[in-house]
Amino acid sequence: MPEAIDRALGQITFDADGLVPAIAQQHDTGEVLMVAWMNREAIAITLAEGNACYWSRSRGRLWRKGETSGQVQRLVELRLDCDGDTVLLLVEQTGVACPTGRRNFFFRAWRDDGWVEIAAPLVATETLYGKGAA
Amino acid sequence: MPEAIDRALGQITFDADGLVPAIAQQHDTGEVLMVAWMNREAIAITLAEGNACYWSRSRGRLWRKGETSGQVQRLVELRLDCDGDTVLLLVEQTGVACPTGRRNFFFRAWRDDGWVEIAAPLVATETLYGKGAA
Repeated sequence: MPEAIDRALGQITFDADGLVPAIAQQHDTGEVLMVAWMNREAIAITLAEGNACYWSRSRGRLWRKGETSGQVQRLVELRLDCDGDTVLLLVEQTGVACPTGRRNFFFRAWRDDGWVEIAAPLVATETLYGKGAA
Repeated sequence: MPEAIDRALGQITFDADGLVPAIAQQHDTGEVLMVAWMNREAIAITLAEGNACYWSRSRGRLWRKGETSGQVQRLVELRLDCDGDTVLLLVEQTGVACPTGRRNFFFRAWRDDGWVEIAAPLVATETLYGKGAA
């Protein structure tokens, strides 16, 4: 690992599972696309390759965003918060971030009496992942 | 607790500690202000009172944002992600979000050879918290 990246990682406080929350934000519009998790290796890969790589807690492995769907996130800037325990990725999102085919994950908003969907899918899940995809 | 709020909470998946990550975003500019944590009670209070209330992991208690500094966050909209395990608060931030006196928590950006500060404090910590504040 390049020394500079190793030094960058040294200033991040990972939790007991070796993870930090990572927010992906579209760099020019400010849209919050998603929140995922990163470990040391995911951050190192993201810095080295220039595309967002997360740690999938459900699959227990590294997850290069868009590896199946092609909906990659090019890293524009990586930021660290004051406590050093959360990172913010400014990215250029290709297509849609959400596996449901919506642009971002936060498509439910609370109204007076329940959650309402405020965004429709822009692309079918089958188009993103092929037939039989979850 | 009002039935509607109780129903809203029922669709959120809290982690083993009863928490979800909560992103606070300035509603009009899109600026990501901070990430904190919320439990059921913090979300219920936020919906009922209209100002952001978090769960402080370091202090082990509810934390009405701005209770000491006056830098409150008025809730404009609460959103939930597709997995139901992260919430996004669109807020109107009074003053500055960060205890360091900066507008947001993410004032360090990664450059080729290290983290650099990209924002200066807008207000002194002493002004926010009084003398002797950390």
